[in-house]
Amino acid sequence: MAISNIRYGEGVTKEIGMDLQNLGARRVCLMTDKNLSKLPPVNAVLNSLVKYGINFQMYDNVRVEPTDQSFLDAIQFAKNGEFDAYVAVGGGSVIDTCKAANLYAASPSSEFLDYVNAPIGKGKPVTVPLKPLIAVPTTSGTGSETTGVAIFDFKELKVKTGIASRAIKPTLGIIDPLHTLSMPERIVANSGFDVLCHALESYTALPYNQRRPCPSNPINRPAYQGSNPVSDVWALHALRVVAKYLKRAIRNPEDREARANMHLASAFAGIGFGNAGVHLCHGMSYPISGLVKTYKPKDYNVDHSLVPHGLSVVLTSPAVFAFTAQIDPERHLEAAEILGADIRTARIKDAGLILADTLRKFLFDLNVDDGLAAIGYSKADIPALVKGTLPQRVVLPEDEPKLHSTS
Amino acid sequence: MAISNIRYGEGVTKEIGMDLQNLGARRVCLMTDKNLSKLPPVNAVLNSLVKYGINFQMYDNVRVEPTDQSFLDAIQFAKNGEFDAYVAVGGGSVIDTCKAANLYAASPSSEFLDYVNAPIGKGKPVTVPLKPLIAVPTTSGTGSETTGVAIFDFKELKVKTGIASRAIKPTLGIIDPLHTLSMPERIVANSGFDVLCHALESYTALPYNQRRPCPSNPINRPAYQGSNPVSDVWALHALRVVAKYLKRAIRNPEDREARANMHLASAFAGIGFGNAGVHLCHGMSYPISGLVKTYKPKDYNVDHSLVPHGLSVVLTSPAVFAFTAQIDPERHLEAAEILGADIRTARIKDAGLILADTLRKFLFDLNVDDGLAAIGYSKADIPALVKGTLPQRVVLPEDEPKLHSTS
Repeated sequence: MAISNIRYGEGVTKEIGMDLQNLGARRVCLMTDKNLSKLPPVNAVLNSLVKYGINFQMYDNVRVEPTDQSFLDAIQFAKNGEFDAYVAVGGGSVIDTCKAANLYAASPSSEFLDYVNAPIGKGKPVTVPLKPLIAVPTTSGTGSETTGVAIFDFKELKVKTGIASRAIKPTLGIIDPLHTLSMPERIVANSGFDVLCHALESYTALPYNQRRPCPSNPINRPAYQGSNPVSDVWALHALRVVAKYLKRAIRNPEDREARANMHLASAFAGIGFGNAGVHLCHGMSYPISGLVKTYKPKDYNVDHSLVPHGLSVVLTSPAVFAFTAQIDPERHLEAAEILGADIRTARIKDAGLILADTLRKFLFDLNVDDGLAAIGYSKADIPALVKGTLPQRVVLPEDEPKLHSTS
Repeated sequence: MAISNIRYGEGVTKEIGMDLQNLGARRVCLMTDKNLSKLPPVNAVLNSLVKYGINFQMYDNVRVEPTDQSFLDAIQFAKNGEFDAYVAVGGGSVIDTCKAANLYAASPSSEFLDYVNAPIGKGKPVTVPLKPLIAVPTTSGTGSETTGVAIFDFKELKVKTGIASRAIKPTLGIIDPLHTLSMPERIVANSGFDVLCHALESYTALPYNQRRPCPSNPINRPAYQGSNPVSDVWALHALRVVAKYLKRAIRNPEDREARANMHLASAFAGIGFGNAGVHLCHGMSYPISGLVKTYKPKDYNVDHSLVPHGLSVVLTSPAVFAFTAQIDPERHLEAAEILGADIRTARIKDAGLILADTLRKFLFDLNVDDGLAAIGYSKADIPALVKGTLPQRVVLPEDEPKLHSTS
């Protein structure tokens, strides 16, 4: 089990120039997206880079919900720049794009599909050394600053897939709650739903000691090992924070305590699922996002249709946990209690229904779209959604060795 | 905040030969102590080394509660052996000795005092690269497998001090609960008290954002940063495990669930205090151990007087927390509740007394010696105990930059 370095505190972003000096960086690639490039988080980074005399180039063409093509554009920029360090300022889209750029720039003879997860790509292990990457998350959801995963839409197949290797995990995540103060309401909500599902899914994922067959050599153990005593600590803690603070963080942009706690919970849940894996909500979310028709969410300033990742994940969650509870009803009931259910008289066989009802109430209070129909899908889309879900075993705790690991 | 790699599970020790192969190790130093060298944990390691054809030399001269001289003996062995990897099988004494051997063998021109904590030593930062060290704890207390600290008795000054640097942290901790099954009752108790105090002290240590002055460069931030949102998660979790399992683990050697949970809690509390620091119980424990007269504890097979570390730490705990509660009564009350106190009608100003009473009851149930008098100290010893405590600021969250850190 490998865990990331994080630094937390209001204003700690201003130290990033010193961090890059300490790393001996001489040519830094700063990645962000067009909206963020004019907002306070990027300004804070720019000020620090200038103050400490760091030579950098900025790439602000990251696409929100990136595609294979948008990854390739960023990779080309990274190859041209011959950078010796990377800084990613943004949500999961930016951080994931920067991980891919760092990887392929360090491995210039690789084909794009070499490192993409099988069966879509070849899922080759990463053996080249990467440059340091400092991630500065500006949303409170993906936990990408703590994980070795980079997700994108594979346009040709209309499916989300990704790259997964501990090698692409950021060197340092800078968790600065100041950056959450400029987040619009629906971005707080949708990214918070991602935290909620990371916590619930990793806590209810297949236990690490029930994965079969075990790799014969520990070096072949996957990053997504299944739920385990370490990931459980993070998952439960993150779930408690979501239960206590998510509503406050959504409703009041001035509630610094709530927004700070959600920002940290995002990283905590990331450490949890980054070592345990997730399951059905995430597996089904990729076609829900990838097959988007005309849905345009409030508060997202983009020129294309989009189902935000957190929304695509949470929409199926009541149905998912009603179904998965049979495997471990105690954990499902425990999760329901943390989210506010009174379980004193609950029967263990009702655990799934209780958690599903608790989630429906929780989401209803937060004005979540009412199911797949509300974002433009009909019954006729189900075969395509199923077809897009089946290749997503990669998010599950893995049966087969595929990722290199040090522990 | 940097966190160790750990691997957990019954029997995972058998993989250690593969881990060493994966590290490319050709000459391994296996450190342990005389008692352990004939017991199942060392056997399990030896079997794996032989199975995977690992070339090794064994050093079984580690002293329980090591001294500067016993460190120097181990260092000499390491220097002579020109090892490329280390394996430490034992309690904190063995793991700490192995850390020191690894450090000084990698830095052959250094004087012993160079890396010893100031003011006793020079507290120099470690800049040499060390060899990989795999720690296999056989007690459930120190958490040494997760920390960058190595403690020893400085005989000349009759005081405990140590070496503290993230550089000496083990590469991997193998948490194999099978090794706890051969622990005698008092060793389970005393090592469990160390976990209890690690959790309580790190949770009530000076908060990370109240340390003054802050180092101007993050690279100079100390390992012991003060209590913080990450160490708090580990401290509270470890405290809950202690409350639930310590009594069972002490009383019934066959209670595998309890012993396994305490073994893991030791590592968890280690991650917590290894990043937050401890305070008065640990600070005072060093002279209590260092000035030992004739006390010989039950269940410890040694030829010298000895106050086991966990006992020296826990004896002062009721008095310590009665005193420290004024700084943060809420956290003290929360700890008391986790340890079984009914706090529904408690007054916040009584938090210290409530936690002290809760601890006294908890310890009384576990047959702990009744205070310093029971281990041979009298009023006349107080000046010497105070004198030995004052230089122990090193265990506290640090005001001054001293240790190199990456985050």
